[in-house]
Amino acid sequence: MERFAALIEKIDAFMVNYCKSTSLILDTAVKDLLYGGGKRLRPIMVMLAGSFGDYDEDRLLRIAAGIELLHMATLVHDDIIDEARLRRGRITAQEKFGNDVAVFVGDFLLTKSYSLFVDNLSQHSLVKLNKVVKMVCIGEIRQYEEKYDLDLSLIDYFKRIRRKTALLFAISAYIGAYEAGVRGKRLFQLYKFALEMGMAFQIQDDILDFIGDEDTTGKEINQDLASGIYTLPVICLLKDERYSSRTRNILGKKDISRQDIAVLKEMFKESNVLETSRTYVKKFLDRAIDYLKYLPDIEAKKDFQFILNLQLQRKA
Amino acid sequence: MERFAALIEKIDAFMVNYCKSTSLILDTAVKDLLYGGGKRLRPIMVMLAGSFGDYDEDRLLRIAAGIELLHMATLVHDDIIDEARLRRGRITAQEKFGNDVAVFVGDFLLTKSYSLFVDNLSQHSLVKLNKVVKMVCIGEIRQYEEKYDLDLSLIDYFKRIRRKTALLFAISAYIGAYEAGVRGKRLFQLYKFALEMGMAFQIQDDILDFIGDEDTTGKEINQDLASGIYTLPVICLLKDERYSSRTRNILGKKDISRQDIAVLKEMFKESNVLETSRTYVKKFLDRAIDYLKYLPDIEAKKDFQFILNLQLQRKA
Repeated sequence: MERFAALIEKIDAFMVNYCKSTSLILDTAVKDLLYGGGKRLRPIMVMLAGSFGDYDEDRLLRIAAGIELLHMATLVHDDIIDEARLRRGRITAQEKFGNDVAVFVGDFLLTKSYSLFVDNLSQHSLVKLNKVVKMVCIGEIRQYEEKYDLDLSLIDYFKRIRRKTALLFAISAYIGAYEAGVRGKRLFQLYKFALEMGMAFQIQDDILDFIGDEDTTGKEINQDLASGIYTLPVICLLKDERYSSRTRNILGKKDISRQDIAVLKEMFKESNVLETSRTYVKKFLDRAIDYLKYLPDIEAKKDFQFILNLQLQRKA
Repeated sequence: MERFAALIEKIDAFMVNYCKSTSLILDTAVKDLLYGGGKRLRPIMVMLAGSFGDYDEDRLLRIAAGIELLHMATLVHDDIIDEARLRRGRITAQEKFGNDVAVFVGDFLLTKSYSLFVDNLSQHSLVKLNKVVKMVCIGEIRQYEEKYDLDLSLIDYFKRIRRKTALLFAISAYIGAYEAGVRGKRLFQLYKFALEMGMAFQIQDDILDFIGDEDTTGKEINQDLASGIYTLPVICLLKDERYSSRTRNILGKKDISRQDIAVLKEMFKESNVLETSRTYVKKFLDRAIDYLKYLPDIEAKKDFQFILNLQLQRKA
């Protein structure tokens, strides 16, 4: 993001330097992740939220870098869960070195992030943050337990993405603000703002996973769907009376044929579930805007608004 | 271990209660690990080392439980690395639920252990402990990088097991003592004692992996050896002039035949490398005893001696 280029450069430079290693595997894995792109939204949340208080830039940058490293650790472990071949268009650590070593690459990044937290966070923030990391794990395990569940409710889905994604956005803003001395209502508003934004972000991600799918036919199918992870568009289709039984029939099959996929895609188009899903993105963004209103008109508030607008428009 | 039964019972009871979860997978995984055995050596180190200072039993028990949960997290992740089917004679989480979910079961245990640490450790201990966890990860990655390296030196091997195993023993004693107010030379002695003991423990483990192997023939081969992880007995064989070239020939093959395995096993017997390896166990135990000498004659010292003796005799 051009707007935050200078900040992102600082965070990235710190991370590259901080994660240097004599191990070829570690060095390669870290560089792949760092140069592999990513929006650095979470560390930006830390820094922007910190602007609502008095902060030591150097210390906050370290905390922000810690958050991004933590996020990268979950990406590496997520790729093991997904058996994903590509992450952000590049080969994953899992694919390059195998599951076995990818586990410990993720663990290494986790301990590196915790080093930054232990050195730079108050005990209060550290306790809160660690709880969120625990919730992320529980979210991932729940997602596994809910696989192939055709009766998954919207609430189940929202609970899952709250744990998996939104809480990390929320805690990023929280610790950024808290460590800058923000307390009380304002701290709560920043936390909630980031939480709602995180919800919108994940739903948008889940929608984008289906874009392109609509216009292609044939064998390919959304990866989450194929592995039984049902996200909002699919849940909407399952809840739509007109398509519910046909969708259940197809998803309930052991082997989904090419023809089944074509039918699914047709139903996706007809039912307009992507549009329905987008209304939820809008809903969570509106809630985020509500919390934003109460914040003082400093530069960081405009930055937050910019990020919110980006969510609505983003294509990747 | 009968001698520590009451203490182990307390630690286990705390862990069972502390890790209760509404997730069936988490609950099953945690119970499998807890009831699956294990010697609880690391938490015992915490408690015994604490006895050399003034300690709050309740707080130290939580720290000890944290160390065991951390150890269990590494076991779960290790089983992914090893693709091990059985750990302590039971089916692993990886085998039962698949790699994908096992990663997050391990991560969950890690965050649970860090919760205990964040709540009960001083910042000083927390920083030290987190560094050790990082070294454990680096040790695992190094082990992967050193796979199939026929020129692995004794030093490389000792470095690896120091990171993989001994440092966690050492930090267990360190934080137990530190949090009980022990400082200076005594703290150093307890740390070094546990470090040397941890080295002996891992070598003994690596030796035991080959026991039984000697007396059987046929297809089976030590699992580490098959996956290119060379431990002390193999390194000793590779360094023995009489067997070196034959061993290199066999291990260098892409497919090791049944006959090759028979030849390897014969060389293991003839060369007496297990006996040679045992001299290293003895060496590290002797060093541990040296550090023990300086400690005051309290009950915990006798307990430490008991554990050392156990190492020499243990068969599993």
